[in-house]
Amino acid sequence: MLSQTAEYALRATICLSYSSEGLVSTSELAEVTKVPMNYLAKVLQLLARAELVTGRRGVGGGYRLQRSPDDISMLDVINAIDPINRITACPLGLDNHAGGLCPLHRKLDETRQVLIDQFSGVSMTDLLSEVGANLPLCDEKMTARVELTLGKQ
Amino acid sequence: MLSQTAEYALRATICLSYSSEGLVSTSELAEVTKVPMNYLAKVLQLLARAELVTGRRGVGGGYRLQRSPDDISMLDVINAIDPINRITACPLGLDNHAGGLCPLHRKLDETRQVLIDQFSGVSMTDLLSEVGANLPLCDEKMTARVELTLGKQ
Repeated sequence: MLSQTAEYALRATICLSYSSEGLVSTSELAEVTKVPMNYLAKVLQLLARAELVTGRRGVGGGYRLQRSPDDISMLDVINAIDPINRITACPLGLDNHAGGLCPLHRKLDETRQVLIDQFSGVSMTDLLSEVGANLPLCDEKMTARVELTLGKQ
Repeated sequence: MLSQTAEYALRATICLSYSSEGLVSTSELAEVTKVPMNYLAKVLQLLARAELVTGRRGVGGGYRLQRSPDDISMLDVINAIDPINRITACPLGLDNHAGGLCPLHRKLDETRQVLIDQFSGVSMTDLLSEVGANLPLCDEKMTARVELTLGKQ
């Protein structure tokens, strides 16, 4: 299961995906994502370290995506926070398991691969452009504003 | 992804599954599972609260499963530590999402269901009885001992 931090990171990245140009201030991000300000600052730091977002401090500062929302998958965002790594060696370090994982760790490894498959194929744009669906993070007022930006009716 | 604590809980439950009768001391459990003693005590407390294991303190004390390893799934153990709950309402509490999740939270919810499916169908017995596979937690010495107990050659 995803950590709360990873879910917050997805919210922040989606929020930035709505504003393809210009910087979004941390206070606006906090308001839209409903993530506590201090927590959000840490999340943004991790996203910046993974080169998904870039920011500028101070007056008029804020954050923007470092590449197109088309080109950022859910997995990219999750991996910036809690990387989903395959299990390649016995976590207990047992010599006699060096040749192959036991059924417990094989199953846990398979599940990680399933998660990778689930999240790698979905981009930020996919999450914003599903026909007939609610827009992530958007209350009614923001929905109207975003639909204008996205060129929807 | 599973927390380290949930993975430790799976190790502890598997270790107890090898000893269908009698109590296993916490020190033996710690040795076999390679989980630090203090951490293990907390894990066992959570498993006991979920009525998967039962224990007795003091000299000659220890833990045993509260029901057959056939009847304990990986999901039971994981849910005792970090329950995998479906997402049934907008985590941001947005009124206009009350009628249905947005694509972000729908995808996260679907992934939780995938995890539930992955883990609910695998019992402790399944993990111990796969033909030709390594036995979970078992070095060579313990493999020999366990195979005797399980009636393998």
